Amino acid sequence: MKGSDRLGLILQETRAVDVEPDPLTKKVYLELPEPALTDNRADVDRVRQEFARVSGPVGVDLEMMRKIPGAVRKYGWRVTAVAGWFGCGWKLVDLQGGNTSARNFGLAVDIGTTTVVAYLVDMNSGVVTGVQAGYNGQIRFGEDILSRIFSAGNGEGLHLLKDAAVDTLNELILGLAGSSGLATEEITAVSVGANTTMTHLFLGLDPANICTAPYIPAVNSPGIIEAGQLGLSVNRKAPVYIFPGVGSYLGGDVIAGVLASGMHRKDELALLVDIGTNGEIVLGNSQWMVACAGAAGPALEGGVAACGMRAEPGAIYRVEIDHRTGRVDYGTIGGCPPVGICGSGLVDGIAGLFLAGLVDRSGRFREGTDRFVLVPAGRSGTGKDIAISQADINNFMRTKGAVNAALELLLESVGCGLGEIERFYAAGAFGHHLDIESAVTLGLYPDLPRERMVKLGNSSGEGARLALMSRKCIREAEDIARNVTYFELNASQEFMNKFVSSKFIPHTNLDYFPTVKMRLADRGLPGGS
Amino acid sequence: MKGSDRLGLILQETRAVDVEPDPLTKKVYLELPEPALTDNRADVDRVRQEFARVSGPVGVDLEMMRKIPGAVRKYGWRVTAVAGWFGCGWKLVDLQGGNTSARNFGLAVDIGTTTVVAYLVDMNSGVVTGVQAGYNGQIRFGEDILSRIFSAGNGEGLHLLKDAAVDTLNELILGLAGSSGLATEEITAVSVGANTTMTHLFLGLDPANICTAPYIPAVNSPGIIEAGQLGLSVNRKAPVYIFPGVGSYLGGDVIAGVLASGMHRKDELALLVDIGTNGEIVLGNSQWMVACAGAAGPALEGGVAACGMRAEPGAIYRVEIDHRTGRVDYGTIGGCPPVGICGSGLVDGIAGLFLAGLVDRSGRFREGTDRFVLVPAGRSGTGKDIAISQADINNFMRTKGAVNAALELLLESVGCGLGEIERFYAAGAFGHHLDIESAVTLGLYPDLPRERMVKLGNSSGEGARLALMSRKCIREAEDIARNVTYFELNASQEFMNKFVSSKFIPHTNLDYFPTVKMRLADRGLPGGS
Repeated sequence: MKGSDRLGLILQETRAVDVEPDPLTKKVYLELPEPALTDNRADVDRVRQEFARVSGPVGVDLEMMRKIPGAVRKYGWRVTAVAGWFGCGWKLVDLQGGNTSARNFGLAVDIGTTTVVAYLVDMNSGVVTGVQAGYNGQIRFGEDILSRIFSAGNGEGLHLLKDAAVDTLNELILGLAGSSGLATEEITAVSVGANTTMTHLFLGLDPANICTAPYIPAVNSPGIIEAGQLGLSVNRKAPVYIFPGVGSYLGGDVIAGVLASGMHRKDELALLVDIGTNGEIVLGNSQWMVACAGAAGPALEGGVAACGMRAEPGAIYRVEIDHRTGRVDYGTIGGCPPVGICGSGLVDGIAGLFLAGLVDRSGRFREGTDRFVLVPAGRSGTGKDIAISQADINNFMRTKGAVNAALELLLESVGCGLGEIERFYAAGAFGHHLDIESAVTLGLYPDLPRERMVKLGNSSGEGARLALMSRKCIREAEDIARNVTYFELNASQEFMNKFVSSKFIPHTNLDYFPTVKMRLADRGLPGGS
Repeated sequence: MKGSDRLGLILQETRAVDVEPDPLTKKVYLELPEPALTDNRADVDRVRQEFARVSGPVGVDLEMMRKIPGAVRKYGWRVTAVAGWFGCGWKLVDLQGGNTSARNFGLAVDIGTTTVVAYLVDMNSGVVTGVQAGYNGQIRFGEDILSRIFSAGNGEGLHLLKDAAVDTLNELILGLAGSSGLATEEITAVSVGANTTMTHLFLGLDPANICTAPYIPAVNSPGIIEAGQLGLSVNRKAPVYIFPGVGSYLGGDVIAGVLASGMHRKDELALLVDIGTNGEIVLGNSQWMVACAGAAGPALEGGVAACGMRAEPGAIYRVEIDHRTGRVDYGTIGGCPPVGICGSGLVDGIAGLFLAGLVDRSGRFREGTDRFVLVPAGRSGTGKDIAISQADINNFMRTKGAVNAALELLLESVGCGLGEIERFYAAGAFGHHLDIESAVTLGLYPDLPRERMVKLGNSSGEGARLALMSRKCIREAEDIARNVTYFELNASQEFMNKFVSSKFIPHTNLDYFPTVKMRLADRGLPGGS
């Protein structure tokens, strides 16, 4: 897939969390004693008891009861029992002929508002053996979350949105099965990280109350659901674990990210920032966690900046501006002629403009201009200038201001300072592609020693992989969601005050950003000491 | 319903087991705190947490998750949560507006090969508030169990048999709902006692291996299944508890009977005999239980004796023969002109013939005749003689022989004698109608002091009622089934030997039947001392 690394395929740069395999679905090979007058146990009870002897109790539903008598005889009493974890116990998912225990596949899924990514995971080893990504088919109902919620309220909208998400995922599943030489029924476990609205739409739950005060989701902790009930093209009885959210704007994708970071296991004070369609911030350690979220992201998604676009071929994703000459160097996805700028390119560009002295600390172009041309019309793929405008910078400043205000609010709420943060996690696909130096320069990320800063990659996908691999991780995810203290920013006057005052690059108080201060000084720019 | 008391409607003569109500489905009225910025729990989590506060944890499936947000708002946050027990935990079955906890209805079902009986149970009080019975719609596929198993193997047979049983039950449910002014969805729990083959057909499980060595059911312990999966016309999410069986010929109906008798709770040695389409015998107490079963019943069901019929209007169900005059007195069901003899009438008749000296201890007519006319053609409803023939007596002797042989085998296996039996339970509808004196006279029942002998009525139905009322009873039923030692008579040479030698009325050794011996002596008949 072209530009596939931009679609969030990279699972994780650092595997932060090690797990002892105890997957969501386990396989147990059984050599059943054949029935005899001296051993006339019923077929289902025989399977259940022999399974229990090896691996503990397992439930058998009506459909499997109907299947077992034929299957055990067809397979000569040598079968592999596939058991899925459903929270309150193991349940028989399938009964396969012979010993198939070497093949045990699960699907880790990240359903983003824009992009859906599916990883095929070998649950025996934990290794990702395949990955597919595609745009969320819901995009035709609206680019952003609010327009999706609005669409869901129209007639059959909810149903159509659910089907669009499921269809998107099913296409990825077919692709993965095809390229891996796997029957789709061989995928016997799924885990899904998604934001609260995406989780609702995927499950066919009405998201209407998410976007109006007091911002109430239908459910925060959906738990484990049978794949057949969701219409997924995997084994119909496969358990599908849905990551829990904490609130309307702090969803399962973030909890999956926290799980993937491992910050909940450590004593060090950690900050996790996930900027995507929304911005979410989690602060804490193994003892406590506080979090907040807001619609921070749109400025960095395609379609908001005048020349903005998704991270697709032709998007400028990397920009350098020589502060002496103003000369621009850039890279495009797929090396194609440039046709627009994606989020990471925009951040690079604005940071470059700031460090070149072309944009001041309040985010305004100097010298009366209101745009900067990165690629002139003659060299662009569209025949038009590709530029960063004052409006684009203003949008970005709002995003940055929201992130700053939220972080300050969290730090104040627990009485900590920026400097006490021992670990910083850049979560999500956008965090993976965003240049840390540019993000720090603009104050989007805090100015911490760089060895404390970790890019997590697609942390929602990695969290989903961990949930497939370990029931302990599922318990941890549920605990994280239950224990996070969530600040509803929509309701906070304090947040609005901080937001309004967060309008300088990188920060009102430059002393919080020592490396930026140094660079400004190097270049003789205002603020440099 | 005409002749309805003959259809097994009488639940139990003696309520042997008292239960502390802890029903299969419970109702909890919730006054939910309304959402606010200071309490922004998700709708489902709010319901779940408030329920847990009052009554412990409850699971919520996807369908209920979809329903809750609309329901709580529609009902103004005042709802009654209906939770069903599914073995591994409680699950939300329904959410009703306002406080409906005063109405909590379950259905106790006895699915017999011939007759299906459904009792509507008020689960708040345990009281049976309605009852309906009907012939099992499977009868058109064959009268007896073997022909049903055969039919199930033909093409769509299994499916048709399942539907026939479910349709029969659904008609009864509609009848009960109609006569009780109840919506069928208000029935939120079901429990079912049935023999192993009936259980299989009701669940759509292939019974093919039940009737050939080594006699293996698909399942003995089906557990609790959602009503919707079975196609029952009650609340689709209602838990349906299926009584466990022990083997191909010792089914859930007998375990339900043992539960209803309470013999598993007491130290006294008890014998439970259930003669229906099959004959089942359970011997034991709170420490141990042994059991066996065999196709004992057909002689006593309609259709085997030449003048035999089901217990329907016009059936002779009671017979007295004056041992001095040979004059016959009889009663018919519904007081109609006699058209045939049902099982209890046959036993009464043969006992009368024996005590009148017209049939000898080996079961043969004296004086060269081979039939005895109970009702001459001129006075019968058919215009033909209604008679007991030598062939009818021979059939009965086989049934009796099987019961005797089985009982002796069980007693020997545990080293007990007949006299040590402290309690005798006549289980099942047939046991309810059978005259104890006649049964003892013929040796079908042991000759115990009458105060030790208890008729249980429809013990399968009563067991089902207990399961609705108490989860402890469900655990007890599962324990009984697990702990019973089952002797497979089909495989026992010893049984065949005893069977062949059990050919005297009431027994080879008349000393085991002191009251019969006395009666014979009174009448100056051979064997009387």
